[in-house]
Amino acid sequence: MQNEFTFSHLEDIRALLLDLPGPDQRAAEKAGAREPTLTKPPGSLGRLEGIAHWMASWQGTHSPRMKAPSVLVFAGSHGITAEGVSAFPAEVTAQMLANFEAGGAAVNQLSKAFGATLKAVDINVSAPTKSFIQEPAMTEIEFIQAFVQGMASVSENSDVVCIGEMGIGNTTVAAALCHAIFGGQPDDWVGPGTGVEGTAMESKQRVVAIAGERYGGPGVDGLEVLRCAGGGELAAMAGAIVQARIVKVPVVLDGYVCGAAAAALNAINPGALDHCIAGHVSAEPGHRRLLEKLCLNPVLDLDMRLGEASGAVVALGILKAAVACHTGMATFAEAGVSDKD
Amino acid sequence: MQNEFTFSHLEDIRALLLDLPGPDQRAAEKAGAREPTLTKPPGSLGRLEGIAHWMASWQGTHSPRMKAPSVLVFAGSHGITAEGVSAFPAEVTAQMLANFEAGGAAVNQLSKAFGATLKAVDINVSAPTKSFIQEPAMTEIEFIQAFVQGMASVSENSDVVCIGEMGIGNTTVAAALCHAIFGGQPDDWVGPGTGVEGTAMESKQRVVAIAGERYGGPGVDGLEVLRCAGGGELAAMAGAIVQARIVKVPVVLDGYVCGAAAAALNAINPGALDHCIAGHVSAEPGHRRLLEKLCLNPVLDLDMRLGEASGAVVALGILKAAVACHTGMATFAEAGVSDKD
Repeated sequence: MQNEFTFSHLEDIRALLLDLPGPDQRAAEKAGAREPTLTKPPGSLGRLEGIAHWMASWQGTHSPRMKAPSVLVFAGSHGITAEGVSAFPAEVTAQMLANFEAGGAAVNQLSKAFGATLKAVDINVSAPTKSFIQEPAMTEIEFIQAFVQGMASVSENSDVVCIGEMGIGNTTVAAALCHAIFGGQPDDWVGPGTGVEGTAMESKQRVVAIAGERYGGPGVDGLEVLRCAGGGELAAMAGAIVQARIVKVPVVLDGYVCGAAAAALNAINPGALDHCIAGHVSAEPGHRRLLEKLCLNPVLDLDMRLGEASGAVVALGILKAAVACHTGMATFAEAGVSDKD
Repeated sequence: MQNEFTFSHLEDIRALLLDLPGPDQRAAEKAGAREPTLTKPPGSLGRLEGIAHWMASWQGTHSPRMKAPSVLVFAGSHGITAEGVSAFPAEVTAQMLANFEAGGAAVNQLSKAFGATLKAVDINVSAPTKSFIQEPAMTEIEFIQAFVQGMASVSENSDVVCIGEMGIGNTTVAAALCHAIFGGQPDDWVGPGTGVEGTAMESKQRVVAIAGERYGGPGVDGLEVLRCAGGGELAAMAGAIVQARIVKVPVVLDGYVCGAAAAALNAINPGALDHCIAGHVSAEPGHRRLLEKLCLNPVLDLDMRLGEASGAVVALGILKAAVACHTGMATFAEAGVSDKD
């Protein structure tokens, strides 16, 4: 177990990010060698073939495993909700955390449907971050604590981990991060979230514009912007993504907020997300743009926009299918099937 | 059980097709009433919400069920393979049928992964249809036998049925059908199938053009064109789709060949596929065009092009997710979560 993390400064996390392990070449080679022997036309399983290969490479074993998927949902509270940017009241975050624990949320049903272990992690929900238009959302210490809590949540016994979040106000946070990291117009990144419109939408655009001016610009530092314009659950997701890499657990990213946290890592090291797959592209318009920036091709496009890792967990079905075919199919020789002319 | 079908002529099947049962309005209303009470922002589960509603409507019960999915793979042989239109030899059809029975094919692994019962049905594989550029592929009697065999394969105890096929040469058959039904250019409908190129591709385009001229044109009769330019497994798929409607089993269509069989039904009755969902859009280029013609929005887009119901079975994961959320989630009242402002 690698559950002790000692970071004193953002610089320590940056050093870790610049020294991440790569994929397992032997496992990748074995997966690549098996694929063309299976009883199907070459390439005919499409995306499933690449997913099986990716799983083996990052698990560091061939055959790839898919018996023990896990789901992490990080919850956090946001000072920016004081600006009236959300359609739901801020107390819903704690209520939904209780709903996760009672088994009543969408992600509970989905995790059960795909045989995944679900853990909901409270990243200081009772203590909202600061409003990022007034001061940085977190101190360096607060940021590191959340990041480490995320790291510690990952089990090295998982075959794959889905990462998602819950936090009223956090699509505003995601838009602020994306605008600060990638620039463009606030409109490029601001969407309806859980369903804002009218003055709430105007507030959302206004605070995202401020975040872009204050924390963005050329040479932006991914970790620093995640501290200043981010939130506890976003820092935790970033930590979980990094730790999963270290303990050889491939990651399924959920939607816009998760992607924004991932983007902060990508800004430090463009290879930092190579062990990650985008479970889906959400209906939140900024997410499609974000995935393009991150060169991530989503597995699903089902118009979902719930968060709480739901899109990532639905994608587990596709991973399960990919691994089942790669590991279970007969070869041409075994089945006595004639290969292509 | 409704396993005795007495058709003497295509006209008898046409009469059935023009008198299909509709969805269950009460089940639909109950699904529609439950959805907004669940602990999530309205619409945030996207496509999953519509799928749960569709399942309930066509199963005729609320809550929708997803405990007993089934998979039907129909295999047939095609005289048109004598024209050199395929990358694999024709004997692969029988070999793959044996592979399905031995449990070695992709669809076996996928069915197991999603808890579905798989049945592979031999539609006279040992007796190829006639080459449709010389004479109609099937006599009326042969067509009716295959159609009825398809109907008889559907179990009314299934919660949903995935329908697919195996048959060397049958993407040529699918292209011939689509060209005859929808017109356009042969190129619009001809693709690489299992991987043809060069002279085989030219042969494929040539025979599809002939089929369009001989069997297509204004006022084309869907059943007659399915008999003349189709094949045994396509007639069986059409029969299975119709029977599923009658015994209240929603259908997941697989790829291009399955879609072409469905298009023949749609040509007779534009509502004939209302109980069907397109499991995926395949990499075979004609399939995307075909789904547009049929107004079917595919659930998945994973670049698959294997046939054997594989794309439909992978989509079962999405149906499972949809039903799990609709039936299992807590309501706002149950969970004590505040609803939208």
